[in-house]
Amino acid sequence: MTERLVVVGGDAAGMSAASQARRRRDADDLEIVAFERGNYTSYSACGIPYLIGEVVDEVDDLITREPVVFKERFEIDARIRHEVVEIDTDSATVTVRDLDAGRDFTMSYDHLVIATGAKPLRPPLEGSEAAGIFGVQTLDDGLAVREAVASGARRAVVVGAGYIGIEMAEAFKSRGLDVAVVDRLPQPMTTLDPDMGALIGERMHGMGISVRCGEAVTGFETSEGRVSGVATGAGTIPADIVVLGLGARPNVDLARSAGIEVGDAGGIVVDRKMRTRTERVWAAGDCVEKFHRVTRRPTAIALGTHANKEGRVAGINIGGGYETFPGVVGTAVSKVCDVEVARTGLLEREAKDAGFEVVTAIVDSTTRAGYFPGAAPIKTKMIVERRSGRLLGAQIVGEEGAAKRIDVIATALWNEMSVDEMLNMDLSYAPPFSPVWDPVLITARKAWQAVEEETGS
Amino acid sequence: MTERLVVVGGDAAGMSAASQARRRRDADDLEIVAFERGNYTSYSACGIPYLIGEVVDEVDDLITREPVVFKERFEIDARIRHEVVEIDTDSATVTVRDLDAGRDFTMSYDHLVIATGAKPLRPPLEGSEAAGIFGVQTLDDGLAVREAVASGARRAVVVGAGYIGIEMAEAFKSRGLDVAVVDRLPQPMTTLDPDMGALIGERMHGMGISVRCGEAVTGFETSEGRVSGVATGAGTIPADIVVLGLGARPNVDLARSAGIEVGDAGGIVVDRKMRTRTERVWAAGDCVEKFHRVTRRPTAIALGTHANKEGRVAGINIGGGYETFPGVVGTAVSKVCDVEVARTGLLEREAKDAGFEVVTAIVDSTTRAGYFPGAAPIKTKMIVERRSGRLLGAQIVGEEGAAKRIDVIATALWNEMSVDEMLNMDLSYAPPFSPVWDPVLITARKAWQAVEEETGS
Repeated sequence: MTERLVVVGGDAAGMSAASQARRRRDADDLEIVAFERGNYTSYSACGIPYLIGEVVDEVDDLITREPVVFKERFEIDARIRHEVVEIDTDSATVTVRDLDAGRDFTMSYDHLVIATGAKPLRPPLEGSEAAGIFGVQTLDDGLAVREAVASGARRAVVVGAGYIGIEMAEAFKSRGLDVAVVDRLPQPMTTLDPDMGALIGERMHGMGISVRCGEAVTGFETSEGRVSGVATGAGTIPADIVVLGLGARPNVDLARSAGIEVGDAGGIVVDRKMRTRTERVWAAGDCVEKFHRVTRRPTAIALGTHANKEGRVAGINIGGGYETFPGVVGTAVSKVCDVEVARTGLLEREAKDAGFEVVTAIVDSTTRAGYFPGAAPIKTKMIVERRSGRLLGAQIVGEEGAAKRIDVIATALWNEMSVDEMLNMDLSYAPPFSPVWDPVLITARKAWQAVEEETGS
Repeated sequence: MTERLVVVGGDAAGMSAASQARRRRDADDLEIVAFERGNYTSYSACGIPYLIGEVVDEVDDLITREPVVFKERFEIDARIRHEVVEIDTDSATVTVRDLDAGRDFTMSYDHLVIATGAKPLRPPLEGSEAAGIFGVQTLDDGLAVREAVASGARRAVVVGAGYIGIEMAEAFKSRGLDVAVVDRLPQPMTTLDPDMGALIGERMHGMGISVRCGEAVTGFETSEGRVSGVATGAGTIPADIVVLGLGARPNVDLARSAGIEVGDAGGIVVDRKMRTRTERVWAAGDCVEKFHRVTRRPTAIALGTHANKEGRVAGINIGGGYETFPGVVGTAVSKVCDVEVARTGLLEREAKDAGFEVVTAIVDSTTRAGYFPGAAPIKTKMIVERRSGRLLGAQIVGEEGAAKRIDVIATALWNEMSVDEMLNMDLSYAPPFSPVWDPVLITARKAWQAVEEETGS
């Protein structure tokens, strides 16, 4: 008898699950239906700032696969503008709203994948629903922002100085808008330690972006239903367009209503096979909690690369294979004009919160041999456990060729290496690629010296 | 009583050892004398091709520290143009020849570091000592080649299509010379598997370099004592200048004469503290064998980054500290015009020779998200053990941003990871840096599929 897999959410996690299940079970054995409430399936949400900044020209470039491709090539019935509004786990059915037809219908499932993603945080302030105020979570959001810029917006305010906010600020700047970034925290990029994040604020300032950190937004001013300004403790910033870059939380409303367990970190609780604690129900992507391999606790991180991996894992298991998701170490990378920024593992504060006592090391070096043309600055920080020298986290701020070195550190972290062992690792060396001691090795060496000095050995 | 450390060889390994020993023991406690037969101490030999290609303008750029700096800043007596011609381990003395004064003297030691480096292979052919034929092992060699180009050489022949040979060919090409590269092996870059190395041959050809692989050099033609051509089985190639890029062997003549043990891989045998098997005698750098962590056997690899690390280890131990050298995994990287080439671990052939049965995977991907400007091609190959899926080696050929990814794989290899575990690692993702699945992850995934297919699971 043919079983049916229903997927809720047609982006990275959901469609990866659908595709992997299909690889292992053909359409006679498993019918697959995916519902997406927006207008697009399988796109690169991380590419939205580049679409707005016209680094990427065509919206099609961001779309991996359209519904027709899923249909014809994979026999997956992917339906856009269909919102799943209820899950009944007792009867194993979902209620689906056809947004264009304006009617609801129910469908039964043998397997259900919840891939509802994340939802942007909106400040609970008057006017925050006004026209001209946008999130940047979905491609639909991104297209709306692009349209607003094309329609002549001249002054943009970005609320939130995290990496998405900064990418958006850069995009607006490159389109010639006046840009201010407002954050209640004292500095931008709080995904970095304060000493590293401060470097980003300096660079944004140098780009002509007005950086207003330490200013809480108190409300939005509107004129004829459209946003006209952002009010903060320090006054009002005029705005034709406002983007909310306050981060995102797992979108668990639907799951929670259905009685599917949501954990302390705010995401759906899954095991390593991506099963929820409810029979027949799987979940993957930004809506689920991930195991953090350094803190050994669940965490919520919205990131396309995790969503793809988790969806793949769910799909393989639904397809009858065996695969597990091993967790994350908190790696992230972004680019602010010429500045590359990356992190992995824990910040100093996070390490202390997790009960570690730490020492740190910061090293300024170059991406290539110092004498080689194109050698760019790279500042690397490592946070390590005192006494053991175990690596706990790292951050990089630099220019061309700097940030991707975080992957070496992430791999070392994954393997629970100590900086003592790392400092002699066999990393590649040639003058166009690295100084004779790679910045990763130099920083590990300096961190190990800090451990030794601290223990007096 | 003041002890004396004598260092034989004033480049990376020797001077690192001297500097580290000095950090831990002051001049009253340990006198340090380093003898270098050439004209320079502590320089970047890997930078020589770039000096000749005028990518780097000044010879001073390649010199890390001159003797006067060692003297004044570190109280290390570094003497250039002084060649150690004999070691007497019974009396613990060295005989030193002052090359300018033309006289010998002896000096006693409490600790001796042998850092005599590597010597280039020269073919045992008639004419191979003629003027105009150069090795590129030392900075003195490099300056001689640069001088020959400046004096009007128009036709260059490079014997040996390894990475140094190719770097030299590119340097000559960029200076406007006609360049031929000759190698008896059927293709260039035999540090890669044939399928990957073939790509390099195509690129060299595209650059206008005459690639003559599968042609053995049979002799050198000379005119008035200067080289005028290179004879091969296929004819004679006219040449004003010839560079020997046939690789190098550990320079162990002095050690062997002194009865210091040399191993099967051709280098001085040392333990993890860099002690030889002779009392008071240490060794470091290109002249010693290194433990290969994948084959678990000694190997001889001439590379500045190892020399620096080994010298540091020897120096710390001589200084009364404790440090060990953990071995190598065979990582290397180089650049041929716009093509980046890297490897780590074992080639297919090397893996089979070491007793592994293997499966392989090759993946074509891009360095950034496919839609992002500057996305460059990257081809990644992994060699993994069948059944276990343990990573054994990898190679990368690509363009801007490709090669340094080898360090992620080298770190995984260092930790004896399987590709099954690697494929879900938390590597950084953002469109300017990577596709949503990094090429490293895609290749690990494909390699794991190959393992599963092979075992029929």
